[in-house]
Amino acid sequence: MTIQILGSGSGGPFQGRNFTAQLLRVEGEVYLIDCGEGTQHQLYRFRSRYEKVKQLFISHLHGDHVFGLMGLITSFCLKNRIETLTLYGPPGLRQLVEINSTLCGVRYPYPLEVIEVDPELHQKVFESPLVEVYTLPLEHRTPCTGWLFREKPRQPNMRAEKISEYQMDYPSIRAVKAGSDLVLPDGRVIPNQELVLAPPPPASYAFCSDTAPSERVVRWLEGVHTLYHEATFTNEHLEEAAISGHSTAAQAAEIAREAGVGQLLMGHFSARYKDVSVHLEEARAVFAASYAVEEGMVYEIRKER
Amino acid sequence: MTIQILGSGSGGPFQGRNFTAQLLRVEGEVYLIDCGEGTQHQLYRFRSRYEKVKQLFISHLHGDHVFGLMGLITSFCLKNRIETLTLYGPPGLRQLVEINSTLCGVRYPYPLEVIEVDPELHQKVFESPLVEVYTLPLEHRTPCTGWLFREKPRQPNMRAEKISEYQMDYPSIRAVKAGSDLVLPDGRVIPNQELVLAPPPPASYAFCSDTAPSERVVRWLEGVHTLYHEATFTNEHLEEAAISGHSTAAQAAEIAREAGVGQLLMGHFSARYKDVSVHLEEARAVFAASYAVEEGMVYEIRKER
Repeated sequence: MTIQILGSGSGGPFQGRNFTAQLLRVEGEVYLIDCGEGTQHQLYRFRSRYEKVKQLFISHLHGDHVFGLMGLITSFCLKNRIETLTLYGPPGLRQLVEINSTLCGVRYPYPLEVIEVDPELHQKVFESPLVEVYTLPLEHRTPCTGWLFREKPRQPNMRAEKISEYQMDYPSIRAVKAGSDLVLPDGRVIPNQELVLAPPPPASYAFCSDTAPSERVVRWLEGVHTLYHEATFTNEHLEEAAISGHSTAAQAAEIAREAGVGQLLMGHFSARYKDVSVHLEEARAVFAASYAVEEGMVYEIRKER
Repeated sequence: MTIQILGSGSGGPFQGRNFTAQLLRVEGEVYLIDCGEGTQHQLYRFRSRYEKVKQLFISHLHGDHVFGLMGLITSFCLKNRIETLTLYGPPGLRQLVEINSTLCGVRYPYPLEVIEVDPELHQKVFESPLVEVYTLPLEHRTPCTGWLFREKPRQPNMRAEKISEYQMDYPSIRAVKAGSDLVLPDGRVIPNQELVLAPPPPASYAFCSDTAPSERVVRWLEGVHTLYHEATFTNEHLEEAAISGHSTAAQAAEIAREAGVGQLLMGHFSARYKDVSVHLEEARAVFAASYAVEEGMVYEIRKER
């Protein structure tokens, strides 16, 4: 599982930062999270292969997270897309897409679905062969949901030498990979753990933007490998963070620390900060594995074996 | 009068081209024409001073001309704008702005007006101390209007040596600048043309995008100094131009030739063309003063004296 950052800023395209959008990959599956203005430009700029996106998750309907949506789904028309695209987001998303499409004369050659989720609930809203996606109720000035991507547990791999040693056939291999011990023709029983290599632990990614620091969300983040959490402000602007429903870097780090995540990626930086060294300093004082996202970068989301 | 090109492409952000938007300046007045996705990014990138924009003219509601509008007018909120912004465009523009603003929770600290024009009429829709703006009915797949900016005639400048020679006072100067002859105390009459320098001829700029080549529009373009006309395709894709309601470079040049404009600026190039050398070649075979716009460039719009 990897995440590519397409935008790291908030408010405007200032300080060289773009609006929020991220591309999550789980092997061949590709998911887009949020879609600020210029997302299609960033995808083109970074030569990201995004044509296989089938699900797009919008956290909330503020412009810096959604004003690139119409452009992106219109550009799919020119690419002769035929595969269904499903948009997940808060109530209002369907009307937004429908009315803009009607007024701007967009006719989709591919099926476009909109699924409105309840931003007040933590529940599974999507499932593929590889991942499950859950909503994460956040606390912002408008209904806003984070997204939690959990890789499903994988089957273990066989130890190759055991297959030949015991001359195992395909049905036996399938049974062992599913957890069974192996019973040999002479009656001997070979324990499962001697036959397989443990699979990598499932990866998980939580996306929390935009939100005030929320105690409620911590329990759902426990054990998550990578937490993206907005860190719009530094301690200097703590009050402004509270008023605007945003977080400081230290508050994001405190959430990461309480939840015991593997690493924290911070973004959604206010245009007032030329660089984010203070964000990093303040976050790392609370939670060492804190990082500031960089646009174009692809971050690996997987625990070491 | 100058025009800065913010986007030169159509369809997608490909080949390094952005979506249509232009910034027109007449001394201290600033006008924005069209507002494709990423317009605010381009304004920032080129360090264009656009805060003084009070009128924004939208040709039609296709995404590549309007999907940057919500982002731009939202970003004005963050800049603490208080001055009225007036949007001109075809019917549907008001609903587009109102519904997006409601669904996305945009609250404007400045007065925002929308004036819907009739894209089937050629008429004056705006007037400032320096310019008049007229609609230009175009022929596209959706109601679409071009915009004609005409500088008002200016008063001539006084010949400085005549002021001292005849010891002219301010009321006399004002009368002469307005066209009167000068009557001296001894009764002699000095003809107006001996006292003044002719002002520069009024500049004019016509913006025609998107459109099939339209005979109807030619008469309104006569004598215009600079014509921007879309040239989405080359001759090789003449049929596609006709089907999609666009023009080839040669067709744009033919309009320029028939109208006798001073120069032709071409843009809105299809993403299929890596460069526009063929556009230039085909246009110049018809009308020599044809140019392909380049993003960021500022073009002077004024006849030589």
